[in-house]
Amino acid sequence: MKRIKVVVPVSSSMWNAPAQLLMDKYKETDTEITVVNVSKGPESLECTYDEVFGEYFTLLEAEKAEEEGFDGVIVYCGSDPGVRAAREKLHIPVVGIGEASYHLACLLGEFFSVITVGPPDLVATQCRRVRDHLRVYALEHKCASVRSVAIPVADLESAKKEQERRLLTVGRKAVEEDGADVIVLGCGGMIGVAEQLTKEMGVPVVIPGVAGLKICEALIRSNLAQSKRCFGTPPVGKKRVK
Amino acid sequence: MKRIKVVVPVSSSMWNAPAQLLMDKYKETDTEITVVNVSKGPESLECTYDEVFGEYFTLLEAEKAEEEGFDGVIVYCGSDPGVRAAREKLHIPVVGIGEASYHLACLLGEFFSVITVGPPDLVATQCRRVRDHLRVYALEHKCASVRSVAIPVADLESAKKEQERRLLTVGRKAVEEDGADVIVLGCGGMIGVAEQLTKEMGVPVVIPGVAGLKICEALIRSNLAQSKRCFGTPPVGKKRVK
Amino acid sequence: MKRIKVVVPVSSSMWNAPAQLLMDKYKETDTEITVVNVSKGPESLECTYDEVFGEYFTLLEAEKAEEEGFDGVIVYCGSDPGVRAAREKLHIPVVGIGEASYHLACLLGEFFSVITVGPPDLVATQCRRVRDHLRVYALEHKCASVRSVAIPVADLESAKKEQERRLLTVGRKAVEEDGADVIVLGCGGMIGVAEQLTKEMGVPVVIPGVAGLKICEALIRSNLAQSKRCFGTPPVGKKRVK
Amino acid sequence: MKRIKVVVPVSSSMWNAPAQLLMDKYKETDTEITVVNVSKGPESLECTYDEVFGEYFTLLEAEKAEEEGFDGVIVYCGSDPGVRAAREKLHIPVVGIGEASYHLACLLGEFFSVITVGPPDLVATQCRRVRDHLRVYALEHKCASVRSVAIPVADLESAKKEQERRLLTVGRKAVEEDGADVIVLGCGGMIGVAEQLTKEMGVPVVIPGVAGLKICEALIRSNLAQSKRCFGTPPVGKKRVK
Amino acid sequence: MKRIKVVVPVSSSMWNAPAQLLMDKYKETDTEITVVNVSKGPESLECTYDEVFGEYFTLLEAEKAEEEGFDGVIVYCGSDPGVRAAREKLHIPVVGIGEASYHLACLLGEFFSVITVGPPDLVATQCRRVRDHLRVYALEHKCASVRSVAIPVADLESAKKEQERRLLTVGRKAVEEDGADVIVLGCGGMIGVAEQLTKEMGVPVVIPGVAGLKICEALIRSNLAQSKRCFGTPPVGKKRVK
Amino acid sequence: MKRIKVVVPVSSSMWNAPAQLLMDKYKETDTEITVVNVSKGPESLECTYDEVFGEYFTLLEAEKAEEEGFDGVIVYCGSDPGVRAAREKLHIPVVGIGEASYHLACLLGEFFSVITVGPPDLVATQCRRVRDHLRVYALEHKCASVRSVAIPVADLESAKKEQERRLLTVGRKAVEEDGADVIVLGCGGMIGVAEQLTKEMGVPVVIPGVAGLKICEALIRSNLAQSKRCFGTPPVGKKRVK
Repeated sequence: MKRIKVVVPVSSSMWNAPAQLLMDKYKETDTEITVVNVSKGPESLECTYDEVFGEYFTLLEAEKAEEEGFDGVIVYCGSDPGVRAAREKLHIPVVGIGEASYHLACLLGEFFSVITVGPPDLVATQCRRVRDHLRVYALEHKCASVRSVAIPVADLESAKKEQERRLLTVGRKAVEEDGADVIVLGCGGMIGVAEQLTKEMGVPVVIPGVAGLKICEALIRSNLAQSKRCFGTPPVGKKRVK
Repeated sequence: MKRIKVVVPVSSSMWNAPAQLLMDKYKETDTEITVVNVSKGPESLECTYDEVFGEYFTLLEAEKAEEEGFDGVIVYCGSDPGVRAAREKLHIPVVGIGEASYHLACLLGEFFSVITVGPPDLVATQCRRVRDHLRVYALEHKCASVRSVAIPVADLESAKKEQERRLLTVGRKAVEEDGADVIVLGCGGMIGVAEQLTKEMGVPVVIPGVAGLKICEALIRSNLAQSKRCFGTPPVGKKRVK
Repeated sequence: MKRIKVVVPVSSSMWNAPAQLLMDKYKETDTEITVVNVSKGPESLECTYDEVFGEYFTLLEAEKAEEEGFDGVIVYCGSDPGVRAAREKLHIPVVGIGEASYHLACLLGEFFSVITVGPPDLVATQCRRVRDHLRVYALEHKCASVRSVAIPVADLESAKKEQERRLLTVGRKAVEEDGADVIVLGCGGMIGVAEQLTKEMGVPVVIPGVAGLKICEALIRSNLAQSKRCFGTPPVGKKRVK
Repeated sequence: MKRIKVVVPVSSSMWNAPAQLLMDKYKETDTEITVVNVSKGPESLECTYDEVFGEYFTLLEAEKAEEEGFDGVIVYCGSDPGVRAAREKLHIPVVGIGEASYHLACLLGEFFSVITVGPPDLVATQCRRVRDHLRVYALEHKCASVRSVAIPVADLESAKKEQERRLLTVGRKAVEEDGADVIVLGCGGMIGVAEQLTKEMGVPVVIPGVAGLKICEALIRSNLAQSKRCFGTPPVGKKRVK
Repeated sequence: MKRIKVVVPVSSSMWNAPAQLLMDKYKETDTEITVVNVSKGPESLECTYDEVFGEYFTLLEAEKAEEEGFDGVIVYCGSDPGVRAAREKLHIPVVGIGEASYHLACLLGEFFSVITVGPPDLVATQCRRVRDHLRVYALEHKCASVRSVAIPVADLESAKKEQERRLLTVGRKAVEEDGADVIVLGCGGMIGVAEQLTKEMGVPVVIPGVAGLKICEALIRSNLAQSKRCFGTPPVGKKRVK
Repeated sequence: MKRIKVVVPVSSSMWNAPAQLLMDKYKETDTEITVVNVSKGPESLECTYDEVFGEYFTLLEAEKAEEEGFDGVIVYCGSDPGVRAAREKLHIPVVGIGEASYHLACLLGEFFSVITVGPPDLVATQCRRVRDHLRVYALEHKCASVRSVAIPVADLESAKKEQERRLLTVGRKAVEEDGADVIVLGCGGMIGVAEQLTKEMGVPVVIPGVAGLKICEALIRSNLAQSKRCFGTPPVGKKRVK
């Protein structure tokens, strides 16, 4: 049995059930998924400012996974908050759903576009933020474009019809104007919208939660985890919060 | 049940049993693996010249997979012969064990080194060939180095002890001199040598056959396959062999 | 006298005469051109799938050149099938008309666009294929865009007027929207259309057959051929077709 | 008068006085420097794990600067914790001493090397961390190498002689083996060691605290601050710590 | 007192007074600015051809700065003519206002656009020229686009209203179509137009003269100058003009 | 008959005869070569400082070629002084022997190394200078290394034995340590040394004068010249030397 802890980096529990449902649908039979959100933390992650809060509280939650007996950790947010830090602290594989999505997308086509979310007045900031991450992963040259449906994370569930409509409009621009072969949904909150998009667009749509799950399972099953050479264990005994 | 066809691109059947064993060990319970080698084709793939022969006969074998009822195809060779062509012809996911390895390696560290094989007098050619592929995948900047154990493919099984010895020597250079965080075994014939290497080196070692398997399973389970936008279906009715 | 063998990688002989005419027009006085097509092989090369067939049969034809006494080999197809493999097998210079064109284009301007051909429903695939090659040559950053006239290879000769019209439309977009300084014709079958295009567009148009010829003559005359360090000679005695 | 707030992202106040001294020495006459450390936070930043803690508490301190009436903020740490987040929150310029150093170094030579610090067993992790930042800034190709003196931050002041000795050894390798034209000190705690190094090495040595100061003054004086297009203001009213 | 020599690389003295005014407005109190134009030289620099003349006469003027007792040299032209050559000859810092602008712009946003000037029929040439420089500085990937107001340098002062109008039109395209976060004015002759542009566009506008000044002051104040490793002193005694 | 003007950018006439001899040996029968040196100008080009002088006087000489009735111009110096400027002024093809060499080298192997010359104390400067050019041509990623024989240009002819010895030593390092497949001689003054080097090293050696000649002939014969889109004709009537 592969036991995976999924950490949702927001203080709201609204994503726990949908994320659990999604993962249970796509997981292997011998995988057991435990979804938790952070007790403290931001309501949502929509800019780098939010991300700092998300990273901090996610890390505190993620780093307990090993002693809790989990075999792997998934950080359930397209911006992968705290993933690199947790990779240092832990020896079990730590997977960010953003990074996992980008690599799967590379295996499906020459270029992918990321469609992200967030307040309409922060679209350019959102897109810069996605590219910041892509640069750390050294995959920015595989990205045809970053576009946004311009819906705040908090409204994603209630505005699902509108979300689907915009995904289609934005996705078509990504394919026809930007040359994307593959669409990556940029936010863990975009649940239940990929099927429709795939059908109408005719190109693969990567669901980040599923990508994160399959990569995490793949690593556990292959006995692989992050290299402790570049993700060395942090000095023990140092105070981080005085 | 996920049915996967594994095509070994050489005319010898010597790799079928070991590959089957390896995959059976790492596969999910509801995966069924069928390993075949090409009836015609090169004895081994050790240069681009060999690769052209390998590509041709592998493609002929791989492209039958869909009508044979398989859910996915794995090309069992680190140089991924025929993979991009088969992606055009087929709608089920086609995975090359080289490309899959490189992406998994990226998820484990900042830089990986590839350790390849082949005749001692063709080491520079082998390494160029690996970089040729990495450039097509746009991942050459993630590669710390390509090195070789300088053993012809045909001798890999019989010289397993020597192979392990050289892997350790070469692997250490990759880590200490080239800055690799992760080692990727460059040839499908390097079977049963990763465990020892991992233990002695202390960095993750990616076994290409396992990487290909896990990525293929992940794609099938996620209902994902290559984008038909960039891997469009070849014109029907055209003669390719007059 | 410089004797050059030109291999057309298709089973049809329809390109032999026009290619011979083109080369005879641009060759140096002491060059002798022999054009042959492959006896077996695809009718045309319009996707990576076709390319695998083309590569295989072209290689078989190209590799005989040295013992036939030729001083150089030109593979007459914009996708350069079999060129890298033949470079390993042979010691005389092997030139692909695509690769030669891209380098000449670099010497004429900052960015070039490639205008390719093929069935209308495979345009995105065609363009991906050209970029695959450009990445192997590490020249993708010099390419402003890849566009297509969307005419199947088989119709190029009969639809020459339509070809010229579309070249002009597409070429203008390449210059005005994509910033191309130079146009590279992407297919060896685009013969007799460069003059008109040059005149109307006012930017240099590289004819691949001519580029391949001049580079091949230049190498022969300079006593240069591919480096046997990275294009090492394939192991002798190995069976490639069992 | 230009009023600049300098935030030291560690819970210890040991760097306040040396940083104040350094800045007072190099500042313009009409600049006023206020150095504060974070009240809570890590003892030092030596890995990405530490960095998450540093970012969080630094951000809380930095974001008060505008209402406190400062004209600019400098984050006094080579890993620039919280800088991009604070740029979103604030309208006054926010400068990281790492990023400032790298740009000044580019103006002095073709390649720079970064010499960083930290526990000996985390050298590879430290160096990866520096490159992570360089990739976000898109300057990794200007970096000849990252090397380390392998001294924990806490010991920098007490082991100043040893620090100088190692800086010289490591710096020479950077210049002679890696091709560095300029040395960038990678940690704000490397104070009072640049002069000796410059003298013995004969190449420019960039002191991060000084670089950050001069860039911050330059921006304030030029009425420039981060673009609110890509560093848009975070949504107001959202809870970040439930 | 920091004494800076500003060399305007044109034979006209029309830019001396405006440049002096600009610099005096933004300089630190202990900086003294001396603006000179070249006695011989081109009327303006609008293509690479002009640039060769500009470089030659600028170098002759710039290289006297050290014995004239200056602490730094600024070459007052967006194409930085003679800067790298003067860096070899001199030990005091030599700053080009183009290169300085690009680095400051990088500190303000993810991407910048350069808006340049010159005759309408040379727009593409102008833009290529800017990218030529950006490539030498290895910053072309930070540049969203190069656009032009298409006004000859000689008309910039008399057509200031038209210049402002076009700057706004072109600047908006740079931000909205090309994704620029920051605008860099590409020519030293664009004086007194940044304020209006900043106000209407809402993104930072870098004035090259000011950027050059602040970087030059920063270097002098930090005791930094170009590395003599890569900008080694030219052989003495060699005749350069027979 | 193709008439080519070869401009040697130094005031000494010592290279005219050897360059003429070299070109006459490798030219096509219907090519006529005219070698001239600049009447004024530097004794040699060994740093960017020299280059500015070389560019200026070379341009004055090169730009007369069109009205003198030449069909093409070759600038005979590895640093290609004035080539881009002359491309603007002229409509006949202008070829730099450096740029031509790099492109030919790309057609022969994956990586090339440049071996340059100059005073021993300016080796790092020389190498930076070569990379400056490679960056403008966007080919720096094809360059395995730049190394130097550390012999001043003026001594090349008299110290030919020593030159050959060092070429061999340095060339071997380029191949064995840096991974070069091809050697490019970096200076037009390295005449008569390629044959020996080729023989001993077993990799292709590109002689810049020959590469420039063959590329120039190829362009003339193909009716190709630089694109006037990016190398637009300089404004007429402007004074460049008041």
